[in-house]
Amino acid sequence: MSDHISKQFDLELETVRTRVLQMGGLVEQQILSAIDALLSGDIERFDKVIVDDALVNALEVAIDEDCQHIIARRQPAASDLRMVISVIKTITDLERIGDEAQKIARMGKIIYTSERYQLPRFREVSKMAEVAVNMLRRALDAFARLDASAALELAEEDKGLDEDFTAELRQLMTFMMEDPRTISMSIDTLFIAKAIERIGDHSKNISEYVVYLVKGKDIRHTSIEEIKREIGLTAG
Amino acid sequence: MSDHISKQFDLELETVRTRVLQMGGLVEQQILSAIDALLSGDIERFDKVIVDDALVNALEVAIDEDCQHIIARRQPAASDLRMVISVIKTITDLERIGDEAQKIARMGKIIYTSERYQLPRFREVSKMAEVAVNMLRRALDAFARLDASAALELAEEDKGLDEDFTAELRQLMTFMMEDPRTISMSIDTLFIAKAIERIGDHSKNISEYVVYLVKGKDIRHTSIEEIKREIGLTAG
Repeated sequence: MSDHISKQFDLELETVRTRVLQMGGLVEQQILSAIDALLSGDIERFDKVIVDDALVNALEVAIDEDCQHIIARRQPAASDLRMVISVIKTITDLERIGDEAQKIARMGKIIYTSERYQLPRFREVSKMAEVAVNMLRRALDAFARLDASAALELAEEDKGLDEDFTAELRQLMTFMMEDPRTISMSIDTLFIAKAIERIGDHSKNISEYVVYLVKGKDIRHTSIEEIKREIGLTAG
Repeated sequence: MSDHISKQFDLELETVRTRVLQMGGLVEQQILSAIDALLSGDIERFDKVIVDDALVNALEVAIDEDCQHIIARRQPAASDLRMVISVIKTITDLERIGDEAQKIARMGKIIYTSERYQLPRFREVSKMAEVAVNMLRRALDAFARLDASAALELAEEDKGLDEDFTAELRQLMTFMMEDPRTISMSIDTLFIAKAIERIGDHSKNISEYVVYLVKGKDIRHTSIEEIKREIGLTAG
């Protein structure tokens, strides 16, 4: 980062960045726990994910306050200001990823505690979650290393995840049509798949804030081809 | 708003506030158009909503840039800084409401252009949309009038909308079980109901930023009872 007259200011910015990565780590853990519990049917684990979402929320509020103090006291400009605004936006998406993990846990608990004709198969959903968690890790890594090029890869991976969701939806609809007794479990699985697909969207958002942070350009609402030009990659 | 030495600064803040309300009006129009088209089957109208989402996105980017210029040049403090940060957060939620309106239009277009066993009934979904649009209007009105008390009402209305979604889900599941030929149209209707439920969530978020703006307190992740205490209403 740039040199500041005040070492204290450097330290404050670095602390905020570290806390964002901590929050990201916690959110990642929440997704992994929810999916693990989904595969094992571990009710206590679902409960822990549901309760621990409060930790994610508390971190968001705390980092948000840190950012506001920095803006008010340090009056950052240029890249420092972009860093603070990127953090404010990033933690909003991290908090919503946390919400999605909690939703998965809530849904899982309902599935395993109700009497069912059959338990849903979570193989596809668990594969989708691997992709989404990988996207989140790479978005956080791009934030840590100020790597703008990750945004492009994540935009392409997000398209893949959307396609996985559509494929899962088709499969679930086939199950339901073949045997209406699977409707209830299929709808529950569909909501879990939807939550995972949203985790991918939020991770993509985070990688886009990194481009803004590094390049000073807002690439949200921009096509993959335009992003390639923006970060200096020629198409193909 | 507070008195500033610079009249120009007052004007800049006022302009940003006005643009947020314009963006809110556009987003509201997008929802209403999507729902109207859903009831009438007007394909051109669906297309217009889909295309016009780019206007919502462009407004978000423009207002976001205004906010960053204000922070960099005016170095706002206290309530002015809270105003700018509230705007940055509000436009993120407005942009995502726009995305939900676009999703409704996309889904509607698929429904009306594919060969179906029967067209879905949109009565319940259209009632849900009325509630959601009303929530959005009141959140924007609270933002315009700096009225913190609206957050409480919106939190309660959002609970009602979540219940409406659950009721709609149950009804759709009953249709699907009784006649598996309705599965495809029921799933489409379910996604539309989900999009409307999310519009309610985003509107509630906006009303919570108003509390932060007016009271300087962050009430996200706070229960309705706690919010009552926060804004000075006793429970009951």
